[in-house]
Amino acid sequence: MNLAFIGTGIMGLPMAGHLLAAGHRVTVTSRTKSRVEPLLAKGATWADSPAAAAKDASVVFTCVPDTPDVESVLLGKGGVIESARAGLIVVDHSTISPSATREMAAKLVERGTTLLDAPVSGGDIGAKNATLSIMVGGDAAAFATAEPLLRHMGKTITHCGGIGTGQLTKLVNQILVSVTNLAVCEALTFAKKAGLDLPKTIQAVGGGAAGSWQLTNLGPRMITGDFAPGFMIKLQQKDLRLVAEATKELGLDLQALQRVTELFDRAGAEGRGNEGTQALFAMV
Amino acid sequence: MNLAFIGTGIMGLPMAGHLLAAGHRVTVTSRTKSRVEPLLAKGATWADSPAAAAKDASVVFTCVPDTPDVESVLLGKGGVIESARAGLIVVDHSTISPSATREMAAKLVERGTTLLDAPVSGGDIGAKNATLSIMVGGDAAAFATAEPLLRHMGKTITHCGGIGTGQLTKLVNQILVSVTNLAVCEALTFAKKAGLDLPKTIQAVGGGAAGSWQLTNLGPRMITGDFAPGFMIKLQQKDLRLVAEATKELGLDLQALQRVTELFDRAGAEGRGNEGTQALFAMV
Repeated sequence: MNLAFIGTGIMGLPMAGHLLAAGHRVTVTSRTKSRVEPLLAKGATWADSPAAAAKDASVVFTCVPDTPDVESVLLGKGGVIESARAGLIVVDHSTISPSATREMAAKLVERGTTLLDAPVSGGDIGAKNATLSIMVGGDAAAFATAEPLLRHMGKTITHCGGIGTGQLTKLVNQILVSVTNLAVCEALTFAKKAGLDLPKTIQAVGGGAAGSWQLTNLGPRMITGDFAPGFMIKLQQKDLRLVAEATKELGLDLQALQRVTELFDRAGAEGRGNEGTQALFAMV
Repeated sequence: MNLAFIGTGIMGLPMAGHLLAAGHRVTVTSRTKSRVEPLLAKGATWADSPAAAAKDASVVFTCVPDTPDVESVLLGKGGVIESARAGLIVVDHSTISPSATREMAAKLVERGTTLLDAPVSGGDIGAKNATLSIMVGGDAAAFATAEPLLRHMGKTITHCGGIGTGQLTKLVNQILVSVTNLAVCEALTFAKKAGLDLPKTIQAVGGGAAGSWQLTNLGPRMITGDFAPGFMIKLQQKDLRLVAEATKELGLDLQALQRVTELFDRAGAEGRGNEGTQALFAMV
């Protein structure tokens, strides 16, 4: 199948590589051409703009940092919309605003082009190993076309519902990730202050009802002060800003979420943006 | 070995049963004699008081509701201390105050008797299946004697450190359990308000970095309004009261913990004490 992939950063590069490896023809474009060299070496074709990349593609994938970046590659000058046509499917893997997603979908559908929002979780390791969780919102027929392609990149592929529900589900994911992280931070702060043996404490409680991915994976790094990034605080801040916009739209007051958002923002303001989210332990 | 078991409620009854099944001679006492009938039928011996139960035992187990109950069976009239002697080991499975535990240990040690605090987690199902996590504080030699007996009742047995550290580790467990529960409640409240398909949402996010025991086990009950108790809110309130006492002693201000404590207390005040902790979902 003729595919296009726009945005080949830490996530996009290995994801586009899986599509190539599966035998598809992939045209790529990115802000920095040098970044896509590994893909060109494997047979990908370079295009000078998103519009050019999308011209002969059946499905276009985008994976860029934030809402304005998606708006730019889809609707801006040289954007996908310039070559958009009936039957084209655009799959957006970026984590961005659910309401902006719905607005962009409405503009693309005027050209007969269908947008699926398909944010991912699982980090760079999940992208490399094709074990991502992919949360997809949008038209069911377009999903049915895209799903076999998504299976090259991820393990848990969920069609969540209509347009925007992929992004909303990703925000649910980020609320869980960050408040559970806070649970681990508060519990280990108690343990430390109480003078407990911290590795032993994690081992004693981690296997039961207190257990979580955050405790098992971040707890040991918190207690040794290993703040090297798995998922960077500045990216968590970006996702929590999207969560805050959505909770405001929905009229929700979620207090633990608000607390952890404040702590991450404080961490960012203290220059910890490039540290991993486990550095929250230093902020509680 | 000659053992005694004091307090045969939902947890103590199956736990004492495992010791009997392993071939030990077990003397039992409880507030209500009718409760121990199943154990007497399996060969346990009845004693009229904790002191009488402990008289010929090498190891005495206690499993009663709260700090005053432990103080009563150990130090009160007819309590274990009346027959306590050099070499006796008392293993307290109750979840109670760490500082009260240290004080009781100091009184027993004057008689040559060693107290181990050994609170458990895993609920009535863990007690029945002998898969409890048991967090033990106290003298290492006494722990070495008790450990083979604890293996009849639990799967993860951790010697956490000196006297009181078992209780402190249990409190760490309860901070994790309750704040992670709050994370699930806030995330699913967002999902519900956003109009997402809730079972699909749990499935989409539960396997990755957002995953926890609370999400997997309580999430599905929250979204169907199944508030039947696994672990009752009134017991969670009791444990969080112990946590609050300890955080105050340690001079800690843990805000998500404080929020979830308030919500459980409000749930209790609204008459939800006998519901399961997943009913927190109705309070967020």
